[in-house]
Amino acid sequence: MADYRKMWEELGMDVDLHDQLCAVLPQAFGDVFLSQENRPDSMDYYNMVVADIHGIRPAELIEHQKKGGKVFGTFCVYVPDEIVFAADAIATGLCGGSQFWVPGGEKVLPANTCPLIKASVGARLDRTCPFFRIADMFIGETTCDGKKKAWEILSKDVPLHVMDLPQMKRAKDIRAWAEEIETFKNVVEKFTGNEVTAEKLAESITLINNKRKALERLYNLRKNENLPISGCDVLLISQIAFYDDPVRFTQMTNKLCDELDQRVKDGVSVVPAGTKRIMLTGTPLAIPNWKLHNIVETSGAAIVCEEMCTGTRYFENLVDESKTTLEDQYMALAERYMKINCACFTPNEGRIDDILRLAREYKVDGIIDVNLKFCNLYDTEGYFVEKAMKEAGIPVLGIETDYTDSDAGQLRTRISAFIEMLDNK
Amino acid sequence: MADYRKMWEELGMDVDLHDQLCAVLPQAFGDVFLSQENRPDSMDYYNMVVADIHGIRPAELIEHQKKGGKVFGTFCVYVPDEIVFAADAIATGLCGGSQFWVPGGEKVLPANTCPLIKASVGARLDRTCPFFRIADMFIGETTCDGKKKAWEILSKDVPLHVMDLPQMKRAKDIRAWAEEIETFKNVVEKFTGNEVTAEKLAESITLINNKRKALERLYNLRKNENLPISGCDVLLISQIAFYDDPVRFTQMTNKLCDELDQRVKDGVSVVPAGTKRIMLTGTPLAIPNWKLHNIVETSGAAIVCEEMCTGTRYFENLVDESKTTLEDQYMALAERYMKINCACFTPNEGRIDDILRLAREYKVDGIIDVNLKFCNLYDTEGYFVEKAMKEAGIPVLGIETDYTDSDAGQLRTRISAFIEMLDNK
Repeated sequence: MADYRKMWEELGMDVDLHDQLCAVLPQAFGDVFLSQENRPDSMDYYNMVVADIHGIRPAELIEHQKKGGKVFGTFCVYVPDEIVFAADAIATGLCGGSQFWVPGGEKVLPANTCPLIKASVGARLDRTCPFFRIADMFIGETTCDGKKKAWEILSKDVPLHVMDLPQMKRAKDIRAWAEEIETFKNVVEKFTGNEVTAEKLAESITLINNKRKALERLYNLRKNENLPISGCDVLLISQIAFYDDPVRFTQMTNKLCDELDQRVKDGVSVVPAGTKRIMLTGTPLAIPNWKLHNIVETSGAAIVCEEMCTGTRYFENLVDESKTTLEDQYMALAERYMKINCACFTPNEGRIDDILRLAREYKVDGIIDVNLKFCNLYDTEGYFVEKAMKEAGIPVLGIETDYTDSDAGQLRTRISAFIEMLDNK
Repeated sequence: MADYRKMWEELGMDVDLHDQLCAVLPQAFGDVFLSQENRPDSMDYYNMVVADIHGIRPAELIEHQKKGGKVFGTFCVYVPDEIVFAADAIATGLCGGSQFWVPGGEKVLPANTCPLIKASVGARLDRTCPFFRIADMFIGETTCDGKKKAWEILSKDVPLHVMDLPQMKRAKDIRAWAEEIETFKNVVEKFTGNEVTAEKLAESITLINNKRKALERLYNLRKNENLPISGCDVLLISQIAFYDDPVRFTQMTNKLCDELDQRVKDGVSVVPAGTKRIMLTGTPLAIPNWKLHNIVETSGAAIVCEEMCTGTRYFENLVDESKTTLEDQYMALAERYMKINCACFTPNEGRIDDILRLAREYKVDGIIDVNLKFCNLYDTEGYFVEKAMKEAGIPVLGIETDYTDSDAGQLRTRISAFIEMLDNK
């Protein structure tokens, strides 16, 4: 740890304040993850990554910078990592998932802002997260009110480029997103000094598609009646996917899937037969936000799917790899990314179709529709989600929460009652 | 009133519930407006319009419909009325400004939604506003999270077209808005059955420009040291501008300005010499939201300018009248509308420039930055507004409020203290 402390100091971090975060994370991780029974051996890799979350990967990013490489920090599954990697740069997710960072965000943002945005701004301004210090440029997007305005505050502190995401999904909006991707490419080329050629972009499209395929393979394994891996563990993997080296992550996730394939053959399950299968839908769960998975899975149910940015929205649909010109590749990227059904679009009926489809595919017994407090988009859309689920006869529980622990008891009571209702159905 | 009751019934309104609103409005109007001393005689017109707000103008709109004309309801100063009037249709503002409609909105929207949106949805779904019943088609836009999602709910109940407003202000975004205006024209043509020609559009551009010029003339009169009209009265006029007949409104407002010109010549002021001059900035004040103006102007200060959608954002900048082809007219419209500096843009630095300029032009002693609760956009931007005003040495008070009266006492205390501070400067 001594080495990392020096690294953190060199990053200009507030190391004393950061120590407070380091002091609580291992305990939280142990409580949620290491206490689980019958975990796959291949989870060791992810355990290690998280145990030194502010050490190992940051050190790699700094090594990359020492060789002249750039690091781009992103906040949304709409921002195409492919462009970044094609310029021999590295993309890393920057979403804050801990209450630890929220007060720092509240110094400049309204309290009525979602905790994800407050934590992300706080992590940067309070200088308490190495990833937020390392990223040479932040990439924002116009997905929601809170983020649109947060970029203006962050851009006073760090180079920041904003991509204007269309708010609808007509043919011309997909073309507009392809144009934004081209503009992004120009920004990345200029900032890195590296040219993005069609060959380089084709390589990175394959690179990121391979990561998507590994995640899809992992998720497909959860469709088995015998559940080979817990929801907690898959959430952790999904969270790590946002900042780990994509080649290594893909390799390790495929290795885990090999082990899970064997479990399926052997009929091994991490939960007793008859355990109710829950799908979570809604706002993302950024690392280290493990609250809901922990509550659900210690209340007698299992989470088998997340229709979330930290879930299916991240990996479903591949980019067409057959394109050989940059123009065609921008369009292929735009077409894939615009298939993500985020509540920031009006309308966003595709998301209801996704939830109904996933509920079937994952043999879901009930759905918990999760909203991060003050996310008006997903909160309002919850009205349609809950209506559609009721019409389809799928039990649904709507909850709103933030990063504090103050509602954990109340949530446990409501979630337990929901699971009990499912058990008695 | 008996006639209107029949009209409301024919509109499918909940007339009994609506009676509750009718019962309180005259008293509120009397308290705020009729109690003022030394009002211009020409305010009689606006008094009459408001006294029968749900009667006179609705009856005119229905008359128009009986002759085969269409009525379009709008919610934002970005939606170009010019297109509607060019198709021999009528545009009317539909923003709800009363707490009366909020509970109806909360039946389907999160409580954490701004009262303007909740009231607007409630006014439609509860069937308690004739304008919301009369409009044949609603026109939405993608200005904020709350509205984007509200359209999805309203569109189940009424034909609704959404215009995708770009979230940034680059040259290509202005072109994109011109394209949206063309799409809007196609929708309006199809819905009305009337062709929009370049000649018709030129006429309506002049029509709306004339309304803007009348409002600008009125606002310019407020720049005089001897203030010829109260802030309350100008707010009322601004609110009426959204739904009154534009020709008559322009005429009546110019007539009022003639009277005010005479007052200026005669050195007549509605307030004693030395009364502190306040500018309001922030979220719109939809009719009948008169709370803040009433508090400020009964606490010893005068409101001389509103940097709001119900204020300068509505009328500043004219559309270029020299264009003779539809293509050029769409672009001229887009260029004018994209000059409006709404907090929905990222960044929106032009608004700070506007506020500083208006503060000089209107010889402002202090600024009250007003935020409707749960408007994350203006709330976050308030951080920059207040910072810029402090740097410029202009006293600023930031307040957040909604449509309830529960904070009126606290607001009066804070605003009185602010005015007292200005008086002692």
